[in-house]
Amino acid sequence: MNNFEPSTLKYNEAGLIPVIAQDNNTLEVLMLAWMNLEAVERTLKTGKLTYWSRSRSEFWIKGETSGNTQELVELRFDCDRDALLAIVKQKGPACHTNRKSCFFTGIIDGSEFELMVPVDQNG
Amino acid sequence: MNNFEPSTLKYNEAGLIPVIAQDNNTLEVLMLAWMNLEAVERTLKTGKLTYWSRSRSEFWIKGETSGNTQELVELRFDCDRDALLAIVKQKGPACHTNRKSCFFTGIIDGSEFELMVPVDQNG
Repeated sequence: MNNFEPSTLKYNEAGLIPVIAQDNNTLEVLMLAWMNLEAVERTLKTGKLTYWSRSRSEFWIKGETSGNTQELVELRFDCDRDALLAIVKQKGPACHTNRKSCFFTGIIDGSEFELMVPVDQNG
Repeated sequence: MNNFEPSTLKYNEAGLIPVIAQDNNTLEVLMLAWMNLEAVERTLKTGKLTYWSRSRSEFWIKGETSGNTQELVELRFDCDRDALLAIVKQKGPACHTNRKSCFFTGIIDGSEFELMVPVDQNG
């Protein structure tokens, strides 16, 4: 048993590591986003999934605006220490399109199909 | 309905897109690897998960050497078209350490814990 040190993960040339968010109940893969070292530290400290937004160049506490938060259940890393798997308790839809998962489009027989409809949050 | 064109996915500056492999039975997240455009085309054409090895700079048909193949069940992409989710039929362990998943280390109370033992392939 060693104490975990976030700096021992392997970050890419932009200082980022990919993070897969998986629903702890349904095991659905919800999204893929990115963290830098400080985002990993903040996520472990607060228990709130905190990503690095590559488009806005800022920390992004998932659900802070939408209310669709992700509470950390367990953070895992892979054999190369260059990818993270976050098991999360997802409140509401994970996708900004209001679908449960961002992976809502499937390629079936060479064509794109929408596999999920937006969640009705007023229902 | 539109025909799917692999070139409409968003690849990074190195021409790669991250791919999450998920077991179609257990829904376990097995690994994260990378594809370039041709690897996406080959995967869809052959039904065998074909990645781009960043360390060896060559195509990598998963399981070609180890026998631990991944048969494609369905390929999905996310709302930003910059990440793939491959639902796969995994033969044997997905990880080169002989564990079912590459994500076998968890961070619990600030320490690293191995959550899975290697699969006994002779058992």
